[in-house]
Amino acid sequence: MSLAVESKPDVDHQSTYFRCISGCSAKHSIFDVIYTCPTCGSLLEVYHEREPLKKKNAYQWQQLFDSRASTSKWPFGSGVWGMREWVVPSLADENVVSMFEGNTNLFWAERLGDQLGVPDLWIKLCGNSHTGSFKDLGMTVLVSVVKQMMAQGSSVKAVACASTGDTSAALAAYAAYAGIPAVIFLPAGKVSTAQLIQPVANGAHVLALDTDFDGCMKIVQEVTKDDSIYLANSMNSLRIEGQKTVGIELVRQFEWEVPDWIIIPVGNLGNISALYKGFKLMLDLGLINRMPRLVAAQAERANPFYTAYKNGFAEKVSVTAQDTLANAIRIGDPVSYAKAVKAVQETNGIVEQATENELAEASATADLTGMFTCPHTGVALAVLKKLIDRGEISSKDKTVVISTAHGLKFTDFKVGYHESTLDGIDSKHANPAVHLPADASAVKDEIARRLEQHNG
Amino acid sequence: MSLAVESKPDVDHQSTYFRCISGCSAKHSIFDVIYTCPTCGSLLEVYHEREPLKKKNAYQWQQLFDSRASTSKWPFGSGVWGMREWVVPSLADENVVSMFEGNTNLFWAERLGDQLGVPDLWIKLCGNSHTGSFKDLGMTVLVSVVKQMMAQGSSVKAVACASTGDTSAALAAYAAYAGIPAVIFLPAGKVSTAQLIQPVANGAHVLALDTDFDGCMKIVQEVTKDDSIYLANSMNSLRIEGQKTVGIELVRQFEWEVPDWIIIPVGNLGNISALYKGFKLMLDLGLINRMPRLVAAQAERANPFYTAYKNGFAEKVSVTAQDTLANAIRIGDPVSYAKAVKAVQETNGIVEQATENELAEASATADLTGMFTCPHTGVALAVLKKLIDRGEISSKDKTVVISTAHGLKFTDFKVGYHESTLDGIDSKHANPAVHLPADASAVKDEIARRLEQHNG
Repeated sequence: MSLAVESKPDVDHQSTYFRCISGCSAKHSIFDVIYTCPTCGSLLEVYHEREPLKKKNAYQWQQLFDSRASTSKWPFGSGVWGMREWVVPSLADENVVSMFEGNTNLFWAERLGDQLGVPDLWIKLCGNSHTGSFKDLGMTVLVSVVKQMMAQGSSVKAVACASTGDTSAALAAYAAYAGIPAVIFLPAGKVSTAQLIQPVANGAHVLALDTDFDGCMKIVQEVTKDDSIYLANSMNSLRIEGQKTVGIELVRQFEWEVPDWIIIPVGNLGNISALYKGFKLMLDLGLINRMPRLVAAQAERANPFYTAYKNGFAEKVSVTAQDTLANAIRIGDPVSYAKAVKAVQETNGIVEQATENELAEASATADLTGMFTCPHTGVALAVLKKLIDRGEISSKDKTVVISTAHGLKFTDFKVGYHESTLDGIDSKHANPAVHLPADASAVKDEIARRLEQHNG
Repeated sequence: MSLAVESKPDVDHQSTYFRCISGCSAKHSIFDVIYTCPTCGSLLEVYHEREPLKKKNAYQWQQLFDSRASTSKWPFGSGVWGMREWVVPSLADENVVSMFEGNTNLFWAERLGDQLGVPDLWIKLCGNSHTGSFKDLGMTVLVSVVKQMMAQGSSVKAVACASTGDTSAALAAYAAYAGIPAVIFLPAGKVSTAQLIQPVANGAHVLALDTDFDGCMKIVQEVTKDDSIYLANSMNSLRIEGQKTVGIELVRQFEWEVPDWIIIPVGNLGNISALYKGFKLMLDLGLINRMPRLVAAQAERANPFYTAYKNGFAEKVSVTAQDTLANAIRIGDPVSYAKAVKAVQETNGIVEQATENELAEASATADLTGMFTCPHTGVALAVLKKLIDRGEISSKDKTVVISTAHGLKFTDFKVGYHESTLDGIDSKHANPAVHLPADASAVKDEIARRLEQHNG
């Protein structure tokens, strides 16, 4: 990884901007401190005009991205910045805040696929990464844009979010790498140091407020009003730009072959929106000629998107999200609803849900074939099984499951499962240690017994 | 990652074999179930004859390895199997048990290097990997060899080790991926489910014996005597073959430039032996023309190698290892001593140690620049600082620190540090949450106070 830098991207920098997804005509610079449409309050998206990108043909883009994926030249070794012309073309080299994110393991789930009857099964292990979740992909973009804002004399002095999970971990790490202060808001007394240890260790300013999570969000929004602190929460559409690379990357890893299905766990709905956005860009530029079918996998205890889908997306549904093992997708009122509806509708997609027991069993079953899955990946795997069982996914289909975080971030879930102490969970595959005397013959007998079970 | 396979390696399969490091003349097949020299009891090593490997010149090897590092063709996307002719040339494709290990992030520690006055500082993040530690590199080789043995009708029916840490996690995961039974031995009552959750989740047969760790080792050795269970403990030199690729890989990532220094935390001394072995092979085949200086970093509380070094390696030293935060290198009687002495002596290397306080502070300081370091990486970083302070490592040197595991495997260490509850540790960089009322103006004041501190 040398520091030599390729020549600047040959894409017009004025052709990438924020635009309102509700169709307002105004364009805004992505270096402006705005999070929603100033006119109508809708979500923004980073739009890339297609014409300037068509100066290269599909094959040229594929060759370029392929060549960079193998390079050690900074920052192209990053899965995100290897596609910089499609992400933030106007970002100066010196403002790229990259920790070599992306290029994650596209794992051939050979044994699990055989067991399920879909041998062409792949798991995109986004959690085998710097901070242990896919959030790195979005935060490298957001923090890089902030670095450029600050270099250009913006009023921004710090970045902030209200989160107790992967988002705060990724924000704090990227901010630390860039030397930009980060502020994390959370409700006092409800979050342990262990839950927050990544932002704490990365030196974020962690504020525990005497209120609940919604109260924290209100305070964050008030504090960030004067544009001195940049909000990194999920309505910020810059993060989508980084996250969209995961779809492009996995198609590249398949030598530009499009899988039939991609199953992704969803809560706030930003990640499936990002996935769709990456595929749509590839389709428009001719790198692919069909879309995969996108499947949104929800926890039954936090299923507003599933409910809306069942109603034919007649209207947005909000629910009071209940406790779920899949706590990172415990969202009752998803921010990126409108974008996600488009993602499902335009890919002939499906929304399905999984119970607590289903997600726990799916996770445990996958682990037995060499993985170490987080509960959200369990949701996606449980949905995979349902779609196979009812014949939607066939044995010839190429299917990818997006694994969003490393199981090492969820050891309590794993321990609870294998100690059979999770409420309402059967723990059918619990694998407790076997207590034996220190006697070789007793040990040999026990091993022989289990081997017989294994072979029988 | 397609399943298409390159043509078979064009290296003579008879030129790679076990040989005794003490100079016995006997060769043994690496598919034999032996762990030490049957004649004299010394360690074995996997030896690769140089002449057959010289059929390709240095540039051809470099081109081959470079080209494979960018491929999605199984199994060459693996950092280990991309060098298969240098690892186990006689392994059949269908017996490769690979989970896309290696090719880990060679992280440019820009801010940390600036702070320490060594801007050319790099951290090889071996823990950003499938099971979260460098042990994956060795286990992919060991389990692949076992798979081939079993396919060829060997008496082996399972793999086993006595370990409560990264070794058992990696063994269990690779065995699960291959569908080979794994048995893990540990002392009853001394290890929590949380410590063992990876092998438990991966379906290993976990046996808790009424004895201490040494007692477990005795039972393992007895149980494995009849060759039905293959021992994956650290005297097994197959693991070294996988681990040696890390040095080759990082030189490849530097476009075949050799760093001046490599600092690696050491306990049982297998990993530094592996590092040396990879460099020696590159040197013999002309891919590099000088060796890096290897630095072995020990915890002061488990420092037999440091003590031996101070005595000019006059004789092997054993100590009773004391408790240390760096518990994966808490070894009093290191197995790979003889190999490691050679590694240090032949690279003009250094052995240095770090106290508990030094390792904890070094780890916390690194985290503030965007990493999330395990305590063993803390040992290496503390040693780095010592060598800079006393002028051994200069500001112009290119230095690599081997980070052996992901910090997510050591959250207790991080939490203890930031809660200032670790015995004898100053926690100078503790960063506890700040408790505040849910009041925007109080929050703004607190943020302003800390920003001033940051800028001041």
